[in-house]
Amino acid sequence: MFLNDDFLLTNDWSKKLYHQYAADMPIIDYHCHLDPEEIYEDKHFKNITEAWLGGDHYKWRLLRACGVPESHITGSASDYDKFIAWCQTVPKIVGNPLYSWTHLELKRFFGVDLMINEENADEIWKKVNEKLATSDFTRLNIIKNANVKVVCTTDDPADDLHYHELLAEEEKDFKVLPAFRPDKALNANKEDFGAWIKHLSEACGHEITSYTELIAALGDRVDYFHAHGGRLSDHAFDILRYVEADEEQLENIFQKALKNDALTDDEIDAYRTETMSRLIHFYHDKNWTMQLHIHAYRDCNTPMFEKLGPDTGYDGLNDLSLTMQLQPLLDRAEKTDQLPKTILYSLNPNDFPGLMALLGCFQKETAGKLQLGSGWWYNDTYAGMRNQLTQFAEGSVLSNFVGMLTDSRSFLSYTRHEYFRRVLCGFIGELVERGEAPEDEEMLGQLVADISYNNANEYFGF
Amino acid sequence: MFLNDDFLLTNDWSKKLYHQYAADMPIIDYHCHLDPEEIYEDKHFKNITEAWLGGDHYKWRLLRACGVPESHITGSASDYDKFIAWCQTVPKIVGNPLYSWTHLELKRFFGVDLMINEENADEIWKKVNEKLATSDFTRLNIIKNANVKVVCTTDDPADDLHYHELLAEEEKDFKVLPAFRPDKALNANKEDFGAWIKHLSEACGHEITSYTELIAALGDRVDYFHAHGGRLSDHAFDILRYVEADEEQLENIFQKALKNDALTDDEIDAYRTETMSRLIHFYHDKNWTMQLHIHAYRDCNTPMFEKLGPDTGYDGLNDLSLTMQLQPLLDRAEKTDQLPKTILYSLNPNDFPGLMALLGCFQKETAGKLQLGSGWWYNDTYAGMRNQLTQFAEGSVLSNFVGMLTDSRSFLSYTRHEYFRRVLCGFIGELVERGEAPEDEEMLGQLVADISYNNANEYFGF
Amino acid sequence: MFLNDDFLLTNDWSKKLYHQYAADMPIIDYHCHLDPEEIYEDKHFKNITEAWLGGDHYKWRLLRACGVPESHITGSASDYDKFIAWCQTVPKIVGNPLYSWTHLELKRFFGVDLMINEENADEIWKKVNEKLATSDFTRLNIIKNANVKVVCTTDDPADDLHYHELLAEEEKDFKVLPAFRPDKALNANKEDFGAWIKHLSEACGHEITSYTELIAALGDRVDYFHAHGGRLSDHAFDILRYVEADEEQLENIFQKALKNDALTDDEIDAYRTETMSRLIHFYHDKNWTMQLHIHAYRDCNTPMFEKLGPDTGYDGLNDLSLTMQLQPLLDRAEKTDQLPKTILYSLNPNDFPGLMALLGCFQKETAGKLQLGSGWWYNDTYAGMRNQLTQFAEGSVLSNFVGMLTDSRSFLSYTRHEYFRRVLCGFIGELVERGEAPEDEEMLGQLVADISYNNANEYFGF
Repeated sequence: MFLNDDFLLTNDWSKKLYHQYAADMPIIDYHCHLDPEEIYEDKHFKNITEAWLGGDHYKWRLLRACGVPESHITGSASDYDKFIAWCQTVPKIVGNPLYSWTHLELKRFFGVDLMINEENADEIWKKVNEKLATSDFTRLNIIKNANVKVVCTTDDPADDLHYHELLAEEEKDFKVLPAFRPDKALNANKEDFGAWIKHLSEACGHEITSYTELIAALGDRVDYFHAHGGRLSDHAFDILRYVEADEEQLENIFQKALKNDALTDDEIDAYRTETMSRLIHFYHDKNWTMQLHIHAYRDCNTPMFEKLGPDTGYDGLNDLSLTMQLQPLLDRAEKTDQLPKTILYSLNPNDFPGLMALLGCFQKETAGKLQLGSGWWYNDTYAGMRNQLTQFAEGSVLSNFVGMLTDSRSFLSYTRHEYFRRVLCGFIGELVERGEAPEDEEMLGQLVADISYNNANEYFGF
Repeated sequence: MFLNDDFLLTNDWSKKLYHQYAADMPIIDYHCHLDPEEIYEDKHFKNITEAWLGGDHYKWRLLRACGVPESHITGSASDYDKFIAWCQTVPKIVGNPLYSWTHLELKRFFGVDLMINEENADEIWKKVNEKLATSDFTRLNIIKNANVKVVCTTDDPADDLHYHELLAEEEKDFKVLPAFRPDKALNANKEDFGAWIKHLSEACGHEITSYTELIAALGDRVDYFHAHGGRLSDHAFDILRYVEADEEQLENIFQKALKNDALTDDEIDAYRTETMSRLIHFYHDKNWTMQLHIHAYRDCNTPMFEKLGPDTGYDGLNDLSLTMQLQPLLDRAEKTDQLPKTILYSLNPNDFPGLMALLGCFQKETAGKLQLGSGWWYNDTYAGMRNQLTQFAEGSVLSNFVGMLTDSRSFLSYTRHEYFRRVLCGFIGELVERGEAPEDEEMLGQLVADISYNNANEYFGF
Repeated sequence: MFLNDDFLLTNDWSKKLYHQYAADMPIIDYHCHLDPEEIYEDKHFKNITEAWLGGDHYKWRLLRACGVPESHITGSASDYDKFIAWCQTVPKIVGNPLYSWTHLELKRFFGVDLMINEENADEIWKKVNEKLATSDFTRLNIIKNANVKVVCTTDDPADDLHYHELLAEEEKDFKVLPAFRPDKALNANKEDFGAWIKHLSEACGHEITSYTELIAALGDRVDYFHAHGGRLSDHAFDILRYVEADEEQLENIFQKALKNDALTDDEIDAYRTETMSRLIHFYHDKNWTMQLHIHAYRDCNTPMFEKLGPDTGYDGLNDLSLTMQLQPLLDRAEKTDQLPKTILYSLNPNDFPGLMALLGCFQKETAGKLQLGSGWWYNDTYAGMRNQLTQFAEGSVLSNFVGMLTDSRSFLSYTRHEYFRRVLCGFIGELVERGEAPEDEEMLGQLVADISYNNANEYFGF
């Protein structure tokens, strides 16, 4: 039964819905971490290790959990040896979503239907590398062949979007659009804040010497992104504390930050709160969708952070109280009728009930205006997806859901959309089985097709 | 299979248990928000919009989530247009408990077995309105025909219980009893506190000028409610902070509150803690049941609160730390052996493990003395009920559970008892299926009947 | 179906895996609260009440929840009457794991296949007491007959381990090893701290007058435990607050504590943090496994605590924020490469996502170096175990899991290992059923056998 046609489809209705209404829908990957330059350059992957293991800290964590030495993960071992280490590890990880994903990637992208283990490693290495050398497996063709229509990258406000421009000119089968991620604008406490402001000044073409100018510059960049097809913003809200400040205080904080003077916690939080509030207005003006990614707890392992830097598999999640910090931020925007479409993600699934209840307080006029985002990162699992779908359905209106995204640095992760759609169809099929949804194929088929593709297509307005 | 005889009954034992032991049990609705005057007046509903959509903020939230304009929810659109808007919305909400509830209400109360959608809307409008005009569909007859034996309303301590008196005289088929909800006595920080104290003074027949007199007056009102058949109190404990104070401090806080002087957070919390502790003694003296409703986060949307007021669908839930605030309150009562029967509800399901563990520390002499309340509000769903039942069963003794309540403002929500009983029987049936409960029909039938009706009947002592 | 051969085994694969690969594996009970003296003395139990109900506060809580008077729980009623009270209670607790456990204990240990209820009580009383009088039912033989190979007790650093020595000499069928539980070393705020330091001084053979000497003494005791086969430590981290201090501050705090002077919260937390950090180094040096038991909320009922003392069924759980307190403790050890193998337990299942994400940040070199501990106490239930397994599998690598422990004060609780293994096989079988694990009997059989026994055997290095 392993990864057969009906895997994850646990009853007749789920099979019908998946195969007839979900499987063939295109993909809109509205949030990922692919590099536009890398997409544009459209190179071949050197080998399966580069395509599969390079930068994939999901896999790195499992390798480490199995005691594989760092040399064979991010270190100096050869690509072949790293690949062998992964193949030795895979049989141990059954029960983890990567067990299904990694086999699925092998099967769907490369047509290799082998169990991943030490014995088959060499055969897989050869077969896949052979395929990777063919024209079907350049970056662009991988995306195209996965039936992807839109890819939204994650971009700094100061980015010139040069590769997005080139892709817009040359690539007609799918769109690569920028998403506005102004984390550096909000992290006034970081050492490189001053340098980043300079960088932003250059992007804008005029110097930024005051908080007012900063906000104006950010507004300009929102315009610039919008002109390049950007329709989403994205924020890493690891910790959210709502603290207000007036213009004078903000100006003072900004000047201190420029000089890299130490800021108090209250100053940092006030700066973030107020800057966020101003950005929210820009997003609303442009009818963008704002994404907040809450409660990651970055870089928990100091020695490894110092060795490898961020995004290398050393992030936890946070368990702080959230609702009383998020409510005033949303409410404040609503007071002036400037709350944009919003997708809320938390890395801590305990936050979901509070997020669901809160986002329901700001629904207005647009179907699914506020949404609980698809199971993010550590929640991107069978149980995690089921939980997210259950809470979305029971706490709001599932048929509005814009569905899955990859949030990935890998070109081979589109099979996660297949995994998600199967889980979704299993979920809907169970509603039918227990008598809570009618046996109405047209209605349920539409629901499944909408969540797979149509909703995202309409909601974001690309 | 949709809403057929066996919906939600997922195996043979659940079917047997539901149909033979649960379905026909009467209903004790020990906590709801029906208006005793409205019950007594016993009017006909003008139309299905008034009966079904008026005041039902559960439905309003779903309408808003689907982008329906406020005009068609609480605004100036005609009743017919509002009804059409609901019928257009219903097909979208599959997966939400209201999808089952709303169809079930149509079927059970009005015998209309149509799918709710735009196409059928006019037919439903006519059929239901016709029925509503008949004598079977006055307020009293709806209650009677739903096999309800007791309804507990939610009443202010200053209420004269006039309509309860009239109902006690005239209505013999079921009881309408008051429940004591002294939120206004505890909200010393609210603007109308002074006015409310005057109101309470009038109810008591003597002026309240000191904290000591306030407590005495509240004790008098507990007596008054008790004489009118009241056996429960109910508290909105949105936020719980345990802070002690002595009589002198309390007197000072009370005098400040009377004058509407600003209180510090500590003063508010001390006032609430100490007043609550005194109320607890009254409840214990009368062998009442105390209900604490914890962690609602009211009125999160300021503009809509200003437009529509409270209880209009703009409430979130809170995620503050709870256990160290609740423990001293219960422990203090236990120290003088004055802890009453207690039902703890939280709007945040993350609180359930802490509540279950804590309430188990105060069990004494009465079976099920402390209980985790039935899935409240946003937890009143399939998964929410399953979670509440699982945690109750695994963390305490499910056979003591007093079961379901509607917590509703609607006369048509008694079908939620059917929904609950089906979920309960599904849960018990699964215990049998996996070999953790014996195939003992007498024992399990009794269990199901007890939770459906008998336990509430015995526990509350109406 | 009740407790038949296939109970909890919900599909064909789970049956095959349990019966062929899990059922016959020996038991390593790496964390329990058995008394080594009691094991060594190897007495007969007086009767089933002593064996079954004495000290078992899990059962006491259920008796109290059913309204049984304390006289028949911990009070002066006869053993027979206490037993009858339990038999009257059992039919009410269906749905609680104790319903399965208590019947399973009766069946597996005593071969008595009767439903526990008032009617059968006398027959059970006679049959079991008869068996208890035979040589098969001394403490040692109960352990042996349960196929237990290792028992780790829970011991104070000052303990002389006399009975462990005697058992090591005389008992060859299984090992009874000490585990190091220095709660008293960390509780500098407790009244008996000074007395305990004296006690530790005697155990070490030299006076402890300074903090430096205390740490040295603790290091000596780790050596002493290690020489007696100890390979684990265990900490009751009810509340975890990370506060640093330097040697001078620590010395001051220690001197105040010795004199029983009141300590500030910060002093207590700094003392605990720093002492813990030093202990961690000792554990790492010896390649021990450190266990942290987090978020118990002890002795919530003051009157009953005063009457009965600790561990009598009056403990709740805590819901404080955890991750930002635990991260620096682990990170600090990692900075000097001195983090030992670590098992993290929390009594609050809401902590599991944060613990899973955090422990994944410190995996290195040893397979499963950091683990989420088996469902502890209130989580030691069907749903609790399923939750722990799901989070372990999806958030890390389940095949590394060291599996079940009893954490028990009872000699009859080894059937919990059976219960756990059945839940585990049910879980794995479902992965196969939904197509996420291959139908590879060798691989899955090995997985199940490893988690049942082999992993613990290799991981702890007894």
